[in-house]
Amino acid sequence: MNIPRSNYPRIVIIGGGFGGISLAEKLRKQEVQVVLLDKNNYHTFQPLLYQVSTGGLEPDSIAYPLRKVLNGYKNAFFRLAEVTEIMPEKRMLQTSIGELSYDYLVIATGSETNFFGNDELEKHAMAMKSIPQSLNLRSLILENFEQALLTDEYHERNALMNFVIVGGGPTGVELAGALAEIKKGILPKDYPDLDTRRAQINIIQARDHLLDAMSEKASKKAEDFLEELGVQVWKNVRVTSYDGKTVRTKTDLTFETATLIWAAGVKGATIKGIDAKELIAEGNRIKVDEYNRVIDHPEIFAIGDIACMQSEEAPKGHPMMAQPAIQQGRNLGENLIRLVNEKPLKPFVYKDKGSMATVGRNKAVCDLKNIRFQGVFAWFVWMFVHLFYLIGFKNRVVVFINWVYNYIRFDREARLIIRPYKRDYHQFKD
Amino acid sequence: MNIPRSNYPRIVIIGGGFGGISLAEKLRKQEVQVVLLDKNNYHTFQPLLYQVSTGGLEPDSIAYPLRKVLNGYKNAFFRLAEVTEIMPEKRMLQTSIGELSYDYLVIATGSETNFFGNDELEKHAMAMKSIPQSLNLRSLILENFEQALLTDEYHERNALMNFVIVGGGPTGVELAGALAEIKKGILPKDYPDLDTRRAQINIIQARDHLLDAMSEKASKKAEDFLEELGVQVWKNVRVTSYDGKTVRTKTDLTFETATLIWAAGVKGATIKGIDAKELIAEGNRIKVDEYNRVIDHPEIFAIGDIACMQSEEAPKGHPMMAQPAIQQGRNLGENLIRLVNEKPLKPFVYKDKGSMATVGRNKAVCDLKNIRFQGVFAWFVWMFVHLFYLIGFKNRVVVFINWVYNYIRFDREARLIIRPYKRDYHQFKD
Repeated sequence: MNIPRSNYPRIVIIGGGFGGISLAEKLRKQEVQVVLLDKNNYHTFQPLLYQVSTGGLEPDSIAYPLRKVLNGYKNAFFRLAEVTEIMPEKRMLQTSIGELSYDYLVIATGSETNFFGNDELEKHAMAMKSIPQSLNLRSLILENFEQALLTDEYHERNALMNFVIVGGGPTGVELAGALAEIKKGILPKDYPDLDTRRAQINIIQARDHLLDAMSEKASKKAEDFLEELGVQVWKNVRVTSYDGKTVRTKTDLTFETATLIWAAGVKGATIKGIDAKELIAEGNRIKVDEYNRVIDHPEIFAIGDIACMQSEEAPKGHPMMAQPAIQQGRNLGENLIRLVNEKPLKPFVYKDKGSMATVGRNKAVCDLKNIRFQGVFAWFVWMFVHLFYLIGFKNRVVVFINWVYNYIRFDREARLIIRPYKRDYHQFKD
Repeated sequence: MNIPRSNYPRIVIIGGGFGGISLAEKLRKQEVQVVLLDKNNYHTFQPLLYQVSTGGLEPDSIAYPLRKVLNGYKNAFFRLAEVTEIMPEKRMLQTSIGELSYDYLVIATGSETNFFGNDELEKHAMAMKSIPQSLNLRSLILENFEQALLTDEYHERNALMNFVIVGGGPTGVELAGALAEIKKGILPKDYPDLDTRRAQINIIQARDHLLDAMSEKASKKAEDFLEELGVQVWKNVRVTSYDGKTVRTKTDLTFETATLIWAAGVKGATIKGIDAKELIAEGNRIKVDEYNRVIDHPEIFAIGDIACMQSEEAPKGHPMMAQPAIQQGRNLGENLIRLVNEKPLKPFVYKDKGSMATVGRNKAVCDLKNIRFQGVFAWFVWMFVHLFYLIGFKNRVVVFINWVYNYIRFDREARLIIRPYKRDYHQFKD
């Protein structure tokens, strides 16, 4: 990789997610060389992926060019590259576009969908962790209804209109709510010749309540909201398999569906070269100390979802969400400057700003630091916070306009199959 | 295809472009059954495809769900289907989802890129007639610059930064202008470590002036605008071949480029079953009479780009643009109602509203009926007209905001490689 050597130490950041770009911004105008690597040329605002899947937002609005993040920053380089191996002993990376040496390395690769080793499930289920995956899901949802029109076979038609979401965290809850609103507001108008009352949205949660990282009140209210919207909530149910047709669970309960969306877990997106035995804690994450330093590697750091900083207040590490990533990126940025200037480092202290989830129009739940609330106001807070953290002024304006339009018109206009998701539709016939 | 038979005559429309949807809208609330077939579930606003390719607009903003066009219209059906054959003797269609009978058939399939039988060119050139094609071109442009960073080989790097547009019509001119603005405003910021001054934009026109359907003044001014922007304009040059590496012409002139965009011609997108010998006029279009009726087939009509209505004022048929399609769709809608009610038909009269093309910020050319003008005012008229004809209120607002933002910031934020366009980058090495 032909990146010129400068007199400044080279900091290589793998991944342009919340952590990676917060860190890059902190290093602006500092006496370091920054190389940002990502397999995409854009940052993805993951919390709104479910709105892309459900036709409420355009994919471009929640993506932001990584080169623009680095605009005007003379000592920074971006390369579109996938890192295939870290070689800590040589301080080198192996990537899809060649080798690269580093002085300091920051792993900010985020997380990926965790199918817990179930290959059959991974093959047939839909994931929603990237823009292409979200667009595939959007296409599949729409294709299913087009397909339902073409069959007279009762079970096949129902399976095509049956949506099963596994996982009762924010992603699952938000997606279930959005699908329920599509069922109510859009399907009867778009498919007058299909009995869309038979469309079903199921959400399956392994534990005994939804949103289990939130308060009991938020959890209960989210469940009420979903039930108001006609979503079937299944608790204490563990999915064991899905062959593209039938969802099986630990009990006799089964679901016939053409669409299983897997939102039941994530794991760190690790890279070859970090010693599996010593470094990876639960959920495939990399153990880091209070400075986000990888154990035994003083020149390698990890931030965000991939990093697991165990402490008394967070024995399993911080939640795999945007906030810890952003805060760790900023703290590490300051620490790297201290490190270069041979000053003592500042340990990371997580400021929990709370969490929130939206279920549908006027329906959201918020657990902030000192206050918990649900309903219309929570929904406005949810929108404001998401607009605030979205990158790019134009994206904010466009997303806001889409939301206002969708709210007033009970509509989602981006129901477009631009990248068809081909599959065998006739699997329910036999 | 299980579409219920009603007491009303069934009108099948193939294609949801400008012609098809103008016709469908005219038939709202009439005593006919309408079946709209399209291979996509959305209408594409083709005049703005070049802005999707150049990162100025999001693809979703220039697409509109076809089911929404038919919303609230009780007697209309949409099916996502590709028509493979027309069987006029049986009044039946063969499609990708089964057979369908019709009482009246309207062919509104539009046009496709015409490579004039040059298979090698078709294989290596980029076309820009659909949203997926435009996104492929967007990806390729961005990938080329990413790739140029990785090579030290002088010719390869220049070829990756060299863009050759063949065709001096509105599409070619608008694309050339947009690329020139990217070169000027975005490349130096996004690629500080690449000598982007070497990026070249070439536009090749076979005839002796650009925009040859417009006035001489418009043509001259468009050429001036392009040259101001640093575009190389080549006139009286005929491209003969492109092997993915070298563009050859009728003379000794050649171009080394990784990207050839073919905007040099379109042809009607015909369907098997319309007798080639008798019906197809120049450019693969279907001959129609003054009522858009296909010769010898009183129950089959063709409108828009695919239709060639020869008359004294238009000996080669009407221009293959939005306006004739929209006007023919509306006129045919009224005529079909007259036909059903056994009233005499009204011949089509084309109202030429003029034509326009934009080259860049503050730079456009307009030939309206009684007035011709160029420059800033023309540019505002161009924007207003395009917003007016764009389908969907929300799309108009979002496109407008994007334009305002791009204008103020000299920016185009949608420079995202969401669907990578893979190709062999190292073709210039040997």
